[in-house]
Amino acid sequence: MSTRACGRAVDEIRPVTITSNYTRHAEGSVLVEFGHTKVLCTASVEKGVPRFLRGKGQGWVTAEYGMLPRSTHSRMHREAAKGKQGGRTMEIQRLIGRSLRAAMDLNKLGEYTITVDCDVIQADGGTRTAAITGACVALAHAISWMQEQGMIKTNPLKTLVAAISVGMVDGLAVSDLEYTEDSTAETDMNVVMTAEGHMIEVQGTAEAAPFTHEQLLAMLALARKSIDELVAHQRQAIGPAIS
Amino acid sequence: MSTRACGRAVDEIRPVTITSNYTRHAEGSVLVEFGHTKVLCTASVEKGVPRFLRGKGQGWVTAEYGMLPRSTHSRMHREAAKGKQGGRTMEIQRLIGRSLRAAMDLNKLGEYTITVDCDVIQADGGTRTAAITGACVALAHAISWMQEQGMIKTNPLKTLVAAISVGMVDGLAVSDLEYTEDSTAETDMNVVMTAEGHMIEVQGTAEAAPFTHEQLLAMLALARKSIDELVAHQRQAIGPAIS
Amino acid sequence: MSTRACGRAVDEIRPVTITSNYTRHAEGSVLVEFGHTKVLCTASVEKGVPRFLRGKGQGWVTAEYGMLPRSTHSRMHREAAKGKQGGRTMEIQRLIGRSLRAAMDLNKLGEYTITVDCDVIQADGGTRTAAITGACVALAHAISWMQEQGMIKTNPLKTLVAAISVGMVDGLAVSDLEYTEDSTAETDMNVVMTAEGHMIEVQGTAEAAPFTHEQLLAMLALARKSIDELVAHQRQAIGPAIS
Amino acid sequence: MSTRACGRAVDEIRPVTITSNYTRHAEGSVLVEFGHTKVLCTASVEKGVPRFLRGKGQGWVTAEYGMLPRSTHSRMHREAAKGKQGGRTMEIQRLIGRSLRAAMDLNKLGEYTITVDCDVIQADGGTRTAAITGACVALAHAISWMQEQGMIKTNPLKTLVAAISVGMVDGLAVSDLEYTEDSTAETDMNVVMTAEGHMIEVQGTAEAAPFTHEQLLAMLALARKSIDELVAHQRQAIGPAIS
Amino acid sequence: MSTRACGRAVDEIRPVTITSNYTRHAEGSVLVEFGHTKVLCTASVEKGVPRFLRGKGQGWVTAEYGMLPRSTHSRMHREAAKGKQGGRTMEIQRLIGRSLRAAMDLNKLGEYTITVDCDVIQADGGTRTAAITGACVALAHAISWMQEQGMIKTNPLKTLVAAISVGMVDGLAVSDLEYTEDSTAETDMNVVMTAEGHMIEVQGTAEAAPFTHEQLLAMLALARKSIDELVAHQRQAIGPAIS
Amino acid sequence: MSTRACGRAVDEIRPVTITSNYTRHAEGSVLVEFGHTKVLCTASVEKGVPRFLRGKGQGWVTAEYGMLPRSTHSRMHREAAKGKQGGRTMEIQRLIGRSLRAAMDLNKLGEYTITVDCDVIQADGGTRTAAITGACVALAHAISWMQEQGMIKTNPLKTLVAAISVGMVDGLAVSDLEYTEDSTAETDMNVVMTAEGHMIEVQGTAEAAPFTHEQLLAMLALARKSIDELVAHQRQAIGPAIS
Repeated sequence: MSTRACGRAVDEIRPVTITSNYTRHAEGSVLVEFGHTKVLCTASVEKGVPRFLRGKGQGWVTAEYGMLPRSTHSRMHREAAKGKQGGRTMEIQRLIGRSLRAAMDLNKLGEYTITVDCDVIQADGGTRTAAITGACVALAHAISWMQEQGMIKTNPLKTLVAAISVGMVDGLAVSDLEYTEDSTAETDMNVVMTAEGHMIEVQGTAEAAPFTHEQLLAMLALARKSIDELVAHQRQAIGPAIS
Repeated sequence: MSTRACGRAVDEIRPVTITSNYTRHAEGSVLVEFGHTKVLCTASVEKGVPRFLRGKGQGWVTAEYGMLPRSTHSRMHREAAKGKQGGRTMEIQRLIGRSLRAAMDLNKLGEYTITVDCDVIQADGGTRTAAITGACVALAHAISWMQEQGMIKTNPLKTLVAAISVGMVDGLAVSDLEYTEDSTAETDMNVVMTAEGHMIEVQGTAEAAPFTHEQLLAMLALARKSIDELVAHQRQAIGPAIS
Repeated sequence: MSTRACGRAVDEIRPVTITSNYTRHAEGSVLVEFGHTKVLCTASVEKGVPRFLRGKGQGWVTAEYGMLPRSTHSRMHREAAKGKQGGRTMEIQRLIGRSLRAAMDLNKLGEYTITVDCDVIQADGGTRTAAITGACVALAHAISWMQEQGMIKTNPLKTLVAAISVGMVDGLAVSDLEYTEDSTAETDMNVVMTAEGHMIEVQGTAEAAPFTHEQLLAMLALARKSIDELVAHQRQAIGPAIS
Repeated sequence: MSTRACGRAVDEIRPVTITSNYTRHAEGSVLVEFGHTKVLCTASVEKGVPRFLRGKGQGWVTAEYGMLPRSTHSRMHREAAKGKQGGRTMEIQRLIGRSLRAAMDLNKLGEYTITVDCDVIQADGGTRTAAITGACVALAHAISWMQEQGMIKTNPLKTLVAAISVGMVDGLAVSDLEYTEDSTAETDMNVVMTAEGHMIEVQGTAEAAPFTHEQLLAMLALARKSIDELVAHQRQAIGPAIS
Repeated sequence: MSTRACGRAVDEIRPVTITSNYTRHAEGSVLVEFGHTKVLCTASVEKGVPRFLRGKGQGWVTAEYGMLPRSTHSRMHREAAKGKQGGRTMEIQRLIGRSLRAAMDLNKLGEYTITVDCDVIQADGGTRTAAITGACVALAHAISWMQEQGMIKTNPLKTLVAAISVGMVDGLAVSDLEYTEDSTAETDMNVVMTAEGHMIEVQGTAEAAPFTHEQLLAMLALARKSIDELVAHQRQAIGPAIS
Repeated sequence: MSTRACGRAVDEIRPVTITSNYTRHAEGSVLVEFGHTKVLCTASVEKGVPRFLRGKGQGWVTAEYGMLPRSTHSRMHREAAKGKQGGRTMEIQRLIGRSLRAAMDLNKLGEYTITVDCDVIQADGGTRTAAITGACVALAHAISWMQEQGMIKTNPLKTLVAAISVGMVDGLAVSDLEYTEDSTAETDMNVVMTAEGHMIEVQGTAEAAPFTHEQLLAMLALARKSIDELVAHQRQAIGPAIS
């Protein structure tokens, strides 16, 4: 049978919750949960753009990512105390930023910078995909706030983006790996797609064994289905403001 | 009348909530709320002690403090990205660590280190006092866990410690300053006490005007009363395990 | 017509040169050239393994990546002078390291660490794929050297790995993007494969527009063909020692 | 008897010397000695203010603190070589800066920044309180110099500030702890007061045992008396220029 | 006999090769070889000058130095990964910069900065002297380029500078020490001279034993002779453009 | 006439004072003054040697150098606050360390490390030469202390080393440049010699114009004479203990 050790079907994602307005100060604030994985995503709007964009009349969207030291099974060192962000952190926050920018028409944003902070409160696999999925909702909320304030006239959000991790575990293609699967997967692949099912990022890594073309196709099909479900959750959290 | 702009009486603290087991992985995990101020406190137990204590047969308790970038009204730079912790962060985490150690008999802890991470999810004044108050509960939970595991035989927690900020605002001594009061106070004072009302730390700072001996006494009296109330909340959250 | 601005056919890679023994001191040393892109890859063998592997009887392979400040069109700041490696550098060196480890049976390596340094002498697009392709040859040379020294008995290299960048440029799927293509591509995808055509890493990024399933398939097909050609170059550089 | 191990009466401070013009280049330069504790305080006047004050027409006073590596009993690592200032250093320099600003009317200073460097030549307890006491004199000298230069018209120094450490040692409240007392004190408290005896900072820390309200009062009374003596030394060093 | 272990006569330098246009992007690019020592020198022209020179109408020449991790017999840590440049690196790049500036009339350069990067591809002793010798040629090429572009009218290069290491090895004064000599020399001296034989830098260091006045004179005589030979190589590489 | 602007004869050094036991804690402590230049040199003895010397039965001598922020005419940034030591600092402390080691038989020192900290209290030119001259005396004091403690049996100090700056100023060779001369000198040369007049270090730098062989000889002659005078001061400060 194709059931996994975790009890889910191969194409079954964990329960997803997106709680808007989780904190008070940010222009957009979302707690996103994929099962036990919990990420707080806040979108902050600031006037001005980075130096390399000044005077071009367009805006910028960027992201930062962090894990609370005891979001994980054993405590990790705090990156602020170590004095630098690790390679994994930088890789993930670059990925989140690129994914969000792919959903935006930065010319319509005007000379504003939106910084989306994704902080992992609790980790159980898939923090980067939960982060992208939640960050897009926080971004949408921040944009609604900007529209209410009259800071922008047209909606710069072209589409929604969501992300899922898929992989080969015990020879099976499965969706939304939780920690115990993630740490034993033969292959791990993160896929970011638009609401229309077009691809923004595909990052597949052979952990224990190379993967074949057929396995790639199987994983991509799962990703497509799961992302459709995630987008439905996003639409519900955002409401009719952006449709 | 002595009512404050925030509507509270001078000796009235904000609603306090202490939620145990807020996250899954830590040996002790508490979300503490003083009104809108929310701090996640996790206590992590690790074998071994820092180098300067090795071979002395005693344990160690330390603390780290951080603020999520958008826990505040306007976004702060992420310390991990800046590559160092600021002076305020270091000052606060040293204060939390000293306060917790004052409640402990480290000889009874054995050669274990308990690290309490205090991460501010949302800030509205008094984050360091909320952190100390919550951290002590997380520490108590971690110690209960160690007792259940048979790692320690006798309880190393000698007492409970809690903390409150008091200050002079518009000429009045008031307790538990929220952000709008904190930013305009003439004097700001953080007081850490044991459950018995003995002092662990007193840190008073004249912000706008020096303070007199009488004002100091008035603020200390408020602190004593408020800390009694906080200890009652702590006892309720900890339960009968430690009495 | 399907010819590109650069004059090459869509599936035509740039002239590839792999010069072994380019420098004297390293156990394996290779200059790899993809057109004007030139990367020096040196493999250094050192006794011992990182802390997390000690006592497990296995070896380790890791990689570091750097660009000379004026390898690029305009001068970049030197990372050593800035005091930290950027996110792109870390991302690339992690990718190279993972790719090389996928080709190795680390249990057969014994408690040695092989560090492959990939330093870009001249950049014209595709530095990371050239680096992986050359690094694998430098690694093979270092392993031959270890065998000659009697440090290992069986060959820990299971296969060869090579890498190519493919992408969508002006609506066409093309292989081995040079700088002018890279900077205007709609999609950029780096693919790492084994000599057998199995996938080690697939990293596709939509730069200007999302990509479709069909485009993904077209790019993968090009990658497969190009990597076959690269492996032929690798075999020639390595000689009969590893077959 | 109430005599201490060091031979002083409980309320007896160590011999105090304040040497003005100790070095040549600074606008204000003072060597302050509390017994064997020696701190060089130099005040430097620079045009301009930090970014957050620009255009407000007011000035700024800040402080930096350091210890020479062998100012202490055993050699400490040089912070410049370690690449960062420790938490204790930051805490102390923030305290000195706040204390000095409490003595100033920054609006009368104009857009100048005065930086007071406090460098410990020899440490024997009480370096931060000696630093504050000496820094205030160096600041006064720098202000006199500014007046002579015609850079300011009215005196921005509202009062003098001085500081003393008091504590509970062997059950006795004592003033001006030297190193051997400091390292065994039950409680250590630093008090900063104005010449009028109003409080600027009170920082009491239970080192070995919590302290009672009565002990706090006893320590504060000692502090008041000692600071009166210190202010007399300051006035003598400053001369009639500021009275 | 006065022949050295390496087979060269005491005043015989290693074969020197200066290859111009070694890489494509830099305004001046030279690979300089002193025997097995190989250094890539690239000169980059950028508009503007450092802050301390702004508005003075003059230019600036500076240098940076680095070693590839496996340019040496055993692998060195990468300075970018360690997060700082070592003392030796800083010392060398300051020396190169000063030497180049001594050859220039910076007033004739206009408000441009020329940065010469010297990266050691392979080290066998004398990397800093090879770097200076090659850097001067790269600088000359960059200046020719600026003249062709019409950026400057008169030639700011007043003379050529070259450098050689001399030393006392086994009691003999010898020129152009290679690694095996360098590591056993009693005295090591680096000399930078102009084409006219005037001294720019003399840095003599007693490694194993102090050196006498007579030994200093003997080493200087060797340096003069060797630098004459190096200048001949430089002139050949530069061609008639600068004569 | 050959008198300088500063009023001294060309071969006349500034008044030299060497005050032993300037501070209490260090095993050797010296304040050295060359005119207005004042440097505190403390020698600290610690058990053990750096990793690269372990088990070889020999000792180590090293030096660190720093300037107090306002030791100079205008305030310099504090290196501890900037988070790194500059190139000049590293260059100087490496020079001091090498010079001191040249005076020592490290085999006779046993497995101890002596760290000499040279901190500039006031700068007026020649800080590095004053530092070397004073550091050697502090080192001698520390060695006497070790002998008194019975830590070493034979004296590891083979000779004394002292240093002077000489230079070409307004066409004249002069000795012991003070700040106003140093900043306008055509050539600046630092010379370190043993008591016997043998050379340890010669570092000559053309600042404004290259220097000739004859000028070099003139400067060296001045250095020899001045160092003889400095050694006499050293001997007086050390006393008969080391002769």
